[in-house]
Amino acid sequence: MLEELKERVLRANLELVKNGLVLFTWGNVSGIDREKGLVVIKPSGVSYEGMKAEDMVIVDLDGNIAEGKLRPSSDTPTHLELYRKYPKIGGVTHTHSTFATAWAQAGRDIPFYGTTHADYFHSDIPCARSLTREEIEGEYEKNTGKVIIERFTESGLDPVETPGVLVRSHGVFAFGKDAAQSVYHATVIEEVAKMAYLTEQISPDVSRADGFMMEKHYLRKHGKNAYYGQKS
Amino acid sequence: MLEELKERVLRANLELVKNGLVLFTWGNVSGIDREKGLVVIKPSGVSYEGMKAEDMVIVDLDGNIAEGKLRPSSDTPTHLELYRKYPKIGGVTHTHSTFATAWAQAGRDIPFYGTTHADYFHSDIPCARSLTREEIEGEYEKNTGKVIIERFTESGLDPVETPGVLVRSHGVFAFGKDAAQSVYHATVIEEVAKMAYLTEQISPDVSRADGFMMEKHYLRKHGKNAYYGQKS
Amino acid sequence: MLEELKERVLRANLELVKNGLVLFTWGNVSGIDREKGLVVIKPSGVSYEGMKAEDMVIVDLDGNIAEGKLRPSSDTPTHLELYRKYPKIGGVTHTHSTFATAWAQAGRDIPFYGTTHADYFHSDIPCARSLTREEIEGEYEKNTGKVIIERFTESGLDPVETPGVLVRSHGVFAFGKDAAQSVYHATVIEEVAKMAYLTEQISPDVSRADGFMMEKHYLRKHGKNAYYGQKS
Amino acid sequence: MLEELKERVLRANLELVKNGLVLFTWGNVSGIDREKGLVVIKPSGVSYEGMKAEDMVIVDLDGNIAEGKLRPSSDTPTHLELYRKYPKIGGVTHTHSTFATAWAQAGRDIPFYGTTHADYFHSDIPCARSLTREEIEGEYEKNTGKVIIERFTESGLDPVETPGVLVRSHGVFAFGKDAAQSVYHATVIEEVAKMAYLTEQISPDVSRADGFMMEKHYLRKHGKNAYYGQKS
Repeated sequence: MLEELKERVLRANLELVKNGLVLFTWGNVSGIDREKGLVVIKPSGVSYEGMKAEDMVIVDLDGNIAEGKLRPSSDTPTHLELYRKYPKIGGVTHTHSTFATAWAQAGRDIPFYGTTHADYFHSDIPCARSLTREEIEGEYEKNTGKVIIERFTESGLDPVETPGVLVRSHGVFAFGKDAAQSVYHATVIEEVAKMAYLTEQISPDVSRADGFMMEKHYLRKHGKNAYYGQKS
Repeated sequence: MLEELKERVLRANLELVKNGLVLFTWGNVSGIDREKGLVVIKPSGVSYEGMKAEDMVIVDLDGNIAEGKLRPSSDTPTHLELYRKYPKIGGVTHTHSTFATAWAQAGRDIPFYGTTHADYFHSDIPCARSLTREEIEGEYEKNTGKVIIERFTESGLDPVETPGVLVRSHGVFAFGKDAAQSVYHATVIEEVAKMAYLTEQISPDVSRADGFMMEKHYLRKHGKNAYYGQKS
Repeated sequence: MLEELKERVLRANLELVKNGLVLFTWGNVSGIDREKGLVVIKPSGVSYEGMKAEDMVIVDLDGNIAEGKLRPSSDTPTHLELYRKYPKIGGVTHTHSTFATAWAQAGRDIPFYGTTHADYFHSDIPCARSLTREEIEGEYEKNTGKVIIERFTESGLDPVETPGVLVRSHGVFAFGKDAAQSVYHATVIEEVAKMAYLTEQISPDVSRADGFMMEKHYLRKHGKNAYYGQKS
Repeated sequence: MLEELKERVLRANLELVKNGLVLFTWGNVSGIDREKGLVVIKPSGVSYEGMKAEDMVIVDLDGNIAEGKLRPSSDTPTHLELYRKYPKIGGVTHTHSTFATAWAQAGRDIPFYGTTHADYFHSDIPCARSLTREEIEGEYEKNTGKVIIERFTESGLDPVETPGVLVRSHGVFAFGKDAAQSVYHATVIEEVAKMAYLTEQISPDVSRADGFMMEKHYLRKHGKNAYYGQKS
């Protein structure tokens, strides 16, 4: 069942390791088949080394296991909350990558300081608030999805144009049209987080870059007048 | 004698290198056979490259060599002090890993800033005090164990729930149920040390994360209601 | 056409990856054949992995494609502006390398702090100003070249003696006698950017190094009395 | 001539690359045969890749070439000044390694903050003063050796107990009983420089560690009562 998607989700999970975003089992990637309403996700707490496509777990959008001998990632309810809310999302990645997690621990949005950021994000990279005691002691992972959505709604953000978010005191959730692109965006977030940190160290009074530069760079790569890359 | 344990302690020592925690010979791992009361430990000052299981040294809990042609690690009395005091510890790792050692040199506990920390530590990561002149000029390595224990006792810490410690101006000692897990915890300490450092640089006025978040994450992975990972 | 130059430009692009200066497709290198007035450049948005010499695109100095099935780098007009203005430049490299881009985002020239810098740069490493809204909304990439030239002209800089520049909120452009040397200089900029950042962290009140030291080190490697390296 | 020493000096130079201390050709190692009064050193500006033992250059203590088709490192007069002054030195390494060079650019001694430092250095790691205009415009490389010696003399330092030094605005010179050990000490300096930098970032008001701790750790590894490592 969903053999090709399982293969692609496996490869996306292995890409996390290759891109230096995870230690041990600290990350997970999922992909969705929108027609069938089924999500393929990494099993919980399983080492990346030697992981196979058949180890991937299939769940429906309510979290029922449709196939798989292993438990799905404990973060599965967060992924599902995002898939349910945002029909344009095809892949979700969760990491504790070092620099981005430091911003999350510091509880700050990553400000727009340059074109590397603007090439992929059409806004600051937001940091969702901490969960309350009730949210944590209740359906914690589902509520993590809810505070992400709360922040996107309050700030008027679109998960296609802002394909990732920090969760306060926790880590990163990145989105994409598929599993591979969500890993790509998670990688961008880590690099942009490192650059933004260094930028503030070098010039503590630095301001955000100009908004029209963000427009230019974002639209150079995205939208109907994009001219970066090859014609597809 | 203890061939399997020697093999496992060797592999744990090599894992130190793989995880980027040691330069040259600056680290050591031991494991204990509680039934026999014997500890297997890396030989002193021997390069990891080409090291074999038969190079491991076996000592009893009083430090007498039970087997081995080489001298045991000069830090052996610290390991033994910890094994004698804490029956639940099955492995001990000592490193000078970069970021954690910087915290040790700064003489500070690593504050709880997020879930990466809480997934493994049920408290701040403590920093034991400097040894006095008398403690250093006396049985130095044994006394290093004693100041660790002093700190755990004074702060009411349990080495299972707080599986590692910094020693002021020195480095890291990490614990685990076996040698491999103590290396795992030493790796977590280094990553958490790096993240906490960056967190304070990004937001100098940052506060500790909420205590109930620590509870949630720690108990998600540990204890009878843990639901992270696969059923064992 | 220009088979040898395409091969050399390909190798220079791959050197970017080897030297750790690029993530994904975030960089490009070109080289020029001055006699023919033709520039060979990386195709836009194409992955370095598996890239071949035949994928390189040939354009004339007005930006017309002379050969190539793929679109040239979207940054091509910046390269061409520099080639047109500076006849001594034989290669141009563009990167978003981490530390140098942080200086660009901070909007600061990299000050001359030591001999590593002086061995290759006969001045601070300049940071060109941000583009205005009109410059960005107009011929953006060409205007990027223009603000670089503006800065070199205003500060009286020579692109042979100052073989690279930051562009505010963007990244790095490095020059050289050929494609390979421009990558070499881009690598120097990244290392010097990291060292200068650390220097200011270690000693916030640090001053520039002495001018006569810069003279000595620059002239030890360059000019008619150079004595570094082998006789060529 | 001196085939074995050339082989060992070659290997020590390659170790620089392996230990991450050099970019391109930015470093050099030499070793001396005290009986013959001959020094083997890396050729100037030659890439490490593909370098062979026969490329090494032999010079006498006055700098006359005794054997070799290539020019010796331009830093040779610094090495020779040190060999002439300090008969106990058998190897010298010069690098621009990142963190240590940042301390040199900041113009600061690296303070003693912990045991990693004390295991190899019996003092702070000194930073020699900048050269004057006259010293730079005269016999620059020889004078670099002289300011190192000036600092050691003024501070009463012994190059065996303090096997390395920073030169202001420049980089690192490390010493050892042979070429390999000088590279080892250069590697220690880089790691200690990184740790000391981080230590001050984590705790800006940190003080030096206790002197008796330095004594203990230094003497644990060195001198007649050393007990670290295996009996030799």
